[in-house]
Amino acid sequence: MIKSPLQIARESYSPKLPAALKGSVKIVEGKKTESVADQADIEKLFPNTYGMPVLTFEEGESGATDKAISVGLILSGGQAPGGHNVISGIYDGLKKLNPANKVYGFLGGPGGLVDNNYQELTDDIIDHYRNTGGFDIIGSGRTKLEEVEQFDKGLENCKALGINALVIIGGDDSNTNACVLAEYYKQKDAGVQVIGCPKTIDGDLKNEMIETSFGFDTACKVYSELIGNIQRDANSAKKYWHFIKLMGRSASHIALECALQTQPNITIISEEVEAKSMTLDEVVSDIANKVAARAANGENFGTVLIPEGLVEFIPAMKKLIAELNDLLAHNEEEVNAFETNKEKREYLVEKLSAEMAEVFKSLPNAIANQLMLDRDPHGNVQVSMIETEKLLIDMVKAKLKKMKKAGEYVGKFAAQGHFFGYEGRCAAPSNFDADYCYSLGYTASVLIAEGKTGYMSSVRNLTAPAEKWIAGGVPVTMMMNMERRHGEMKPVIQKALVKLDGAPFKALCAKRDDWALNTKYVYPGPIQYFGPTEVCDLPTKTLVEESK
Amino acid sequence: MIKSPLQIARESYSPKLPAALKGSVKIVEGKKTESVADQADIEKLFPNTYGMPVLTFEEGESGATDKAISVGLILSGGQAPGGHNVISGIYDGLKKLNPANKVYGFLGGPGGLVDNNYQELTDDIIDHYRNTGGFDIIGSGRTKLEEVEQFDKGLENCKALGINALVIIGGDDSNTNACVLAEYYKQKDAGVQVIGCPKTIDGDLKNEMIETSFGFDTACKVYSELIGNIQRDANSAKKYWHFIKLMGRSASHIALECALQTQPNITIISEEVEAKSMTLDEVVSDIANKVAARAANGENFGTVLIPEGLVEFIPAMKKLIAELNDLLAHNEEEVNAFETNKEKREYLVEKLSAEMAEVFKSLPNAIANQLMLDRDPHGNVQVSMIETEKLLIDMVKAKLKKMKKAGEYVGKFAAQGHFFGYEGRCAAPSNFDADYCYSLGYTASVLIAEGKTGYMSSVRNLTAPAEKWIAGGVPVTMMMNMERRHGEMKPVIQKALVKLDGAPFKALCAKRDDWALNTKYVYPGPIQYFGPTEVCDLPTKTLVEESK
Repeated sequence: MIKSPLQIARESYSPKLPAALKGSVKIVEGKKTESVADQADIEKLFPNTYGMPVLTFEEGESGATDKAISVGLILSGGQAPGGHNVISGIYDGLKKLNPANKVYGFLGGPGGLVDNNYQELTDDIIDHYRNTGGFDIIGSGRTKLEEVEQFDKGLENCKALGINALVIIGGDDSNTNACVLAEYYKQKDAGVQVIGCPKTIDGDLKNEMIETSFGFDTACKVYSELIGNIQRDANSAKKYWHFIKLMGRSASHIALECALQTQPNITIISEEVEAKSMTLDEVVSDIANKVAARAANGENFGTVLIPEGLVEFIPAMKKLIAELNDLLAHNEEEVNAFETNKEKREYLVEKLSAEMAEVFKSLPNAIANQLMLDRDPHGNVQVSMIETEKLLIDMVKAKLKKMKKAGEYVGKFAAQGHFFGYEGRCAAPSNFDADYCYSLGYTASVLIAEGKTGYMSSVRNLTAPAEKWIAGGVPVTMMMNMERRHGEMKPVIQKALVKLDGAPFKALCAKRDDWALNTKYVYPGPIQYFGPTEVCDLPTKTLVEESK
Repeated sequence: MIKSPLQIARESYSPKLPAALKGSVKIVEGKKTESVADQADIEKLFPNTYGMPVLTFEEGESGATDKAISVGLILSGGQAPGGHNVISGIYDGLKKLNPANKVYGFLGGPGGLVDNNYQELTDDIIDHYRNTGGFDIIGSGRTKLEEVEQFDKGLENCKALGINALVIIGGDDSNTNACVLAEYYKQKDAGVQVIGCPKTIDGDLKNEMIETSFGFDTACKVYSELIGNIQRDANSAKKYWHFIKLMGRSASHIALECALQTQPNITIISEEVEAKSMTLDEVVSDIANKVAARAANGENFGTVLIPEGLVEFIPAMKKLIAELNDLLAHNEEEVNAFETNKEKREYLVEKLSAEMAEVFKSLPNAIANQLMLDRDPHGNVQVSMIETEKLLIDMVKAKLKKMKKAGEYVGKFAAQGHFFGYEGRCAAPSNFDADYCYSLGYTASVLIAEGKTGYMSSVRNLTAPAEKWIAGGVPVTMMMNMERRHGEMKPVIQKALVKLDGAPFKALCAKRDDWALNTKYVYPGPIQYFGPTEVCDLPTKTLVEESK
């Protein structure tokens, strides 16, 4: 591997640790915990891991085992900056406890555990990946660990390798599954602990005890760098509106954080669109009105941030997609027999409910075609393929044309679409994520040595300097509630959507009218690793607002 | 303006200057120069500015005027990182010569000169923009200064403000026009000098005396950061091919530089496609074969870099577009009368030459539709609107399907398209561009004080430390030749395409087979401003290869 000069310089960075993790660790047990909702159901499903106390680490006498242990690591789901540092934190923590401790990586995600596809991690390998982005050290994958056969196969493979504990680094679903696995192994007295680590750039795995998931900080900073650059371009050329879609289907934390960092003219928050039961046409009108207001000031340029999942948060679109999925599933042959999209669409309009037929008719061709054509293997519309940024550009353009005729708009509208996602998921971690991830991993190693299972690694107080961060463990059951999934009630970690009464959203609301009309762009620039601390060690605006 | 922490920290950066510019400057005159071609024609068109010597600055006795002078600045065309530093370099240079010197910025590009739209620049304003990206200090524009009426109007406005010299910061066309303006003012003995500065992220304004245009360094580093991040993602998830289009219509320098920085699997160089008279199908086959070769190794992922201008370099496509432009211009009504794209296409196939009809029939619908529909105000196909990255994805997908049937391909192909352009044009300048631009501006101030006109600011020896850079002036006529533009022969600065016998392209060729089959990605990471010099002060690979 040829390393870039930055990678070489960055290899020697020592992530900052909370004070309690620097020496011998004393575990302080809190009170018995309850799940956030549906306590009776959750307790019944997790008789062996429910109600455990929150654990907080302090400097002091350790009760951890010094018997040699072996640990298996799994990276689950989409990449997030800092995954390699979680792994180096676990590795260093375990090796410090006992140099004979072993660390295995299961390759290509949870599937590696089931298929016994693994690699032992050594100093050489770990040193190669310190402070780098990506999950390429052992690869990731999207296999879900949900079936008892998988659990048993995994246990068999762990036993063969002498593995005493698994660490699953993943999002809400993966941590839910980690908890089910922990319960299963504990119930069987299998001798394999399971610890989770909160990963996702989307930022939707958070709660009272998990202030943020790792990777969110770095990904948002990369996107904000690009948004800032585009805004500077918009403000220099003064001729384009830039519609920027940002990754994150199930929540709008990324769009919100990037908005607080860059102060764009318009930011759509899906959770607000849903709460207000807005139609697509209302979303479009709202943008068009702001375009017109700026045009009245002679400013025919601007920026719009769009969360990737928007379409699914618009109640009418959600309903339309559901009806279309049904219709297309039951009338596949008839639909496919038509030669043109126009005929297909006319046929479907006839079959849809009157309300949805109107919605479907109102859509621009390009999007209507996508809704009719791109199906996933289960026959469902692939919502992530919808180019929402282009859909909005087309619809705003059409709306402005009408407004111009009505004398409500005087200006020129030209737009560029962007989608940022893959650009940030594997960026090298910011100092914050490098430190946070390393601390999460180190914390996991302590939880393992203390014999804990069904816990998620937790590092809190994150707006303070790393020295003062609070490390410990949180029972996963504490974050759970019951939700309907594929027609069945399941215990799952409650997903954290953007709270409309939360401080970050309120911070946006307080400023957005000013930002819309006036040009108040901020240009954050690229992530810096070597400069002054006020440049290099900033937490996200979301964390700062939430900790106020 | 709310400044980001990085912006604040970066304000105090002092750009590095060549030794000769630090004190009093002695001008050393070289020999009389000739234009690169068509010497007789160019000399005839530029009787007053042809043949002037190359100027080199050394430390020594200055012959510059200390009489107060006033200078007008113009930013012309697309943004490039470092424009604000050119301006601060000019400003500091002039103020050092005589604090009574004045600097005016014409607003919104060359149009500002004609319309007398200007602002005087002061310490306060300049300090606000040091080391920042964008052209927002005075704005840019695309008005071309080509007509005598514009020249006369500009002169009138200069006279009214007491302006003795103009600095035009732009690409090859803008500098050509600057030279025509210089000649015109000199011929009239108007008392207004004109100096050019070589700007363009595309990197196609370069020659023996201009080693690189400013902004190329920063823009390529931003794109390479993103390409590196995407490659790390590709190599972690191992499930997508990423097709990445890069800005730069008329040359492939950006794609080539980014390839040398990041080592992607496939890099298309338009100049090579043209030289080999490749068809679109051959370009597609070439990619598909590499996809198949990687798939045979179990690697169903990769990266492809695509220069924005590719389609126009494919001889058959260029010819097809020309025929379509003609056909659509002469048959607009008939074509618009058809209701479906299918009918339009069938009609056009009938009318095209047999050869072009075949090419047109072979195109995927999405692109054929773009060629029929999106016209610019002159009735021409808007080539920049063609989503080449998606065109190639669709065509490679279709090709692989055929190869699979023929047993020549075993694998899965899923792809993501990206287009990077606006993300890098207004980035804050790298140390290199901050230093280079400031030096170019400072050099321009010396040329003005020395009474020069028709010169371009030149700073050379750029792979050495800034201290050893060689500053001076190059007669613009020296870079000119005669080219056909809109049916007429015109004197223009020769555009620098990627040379297929040049060192940077050869460096790519030496490695590309290895990079295609094996995964040899490099991850450059974001531009750093405060770290070790080997991270922060690197010139481009293109410069390094060219200076070997």
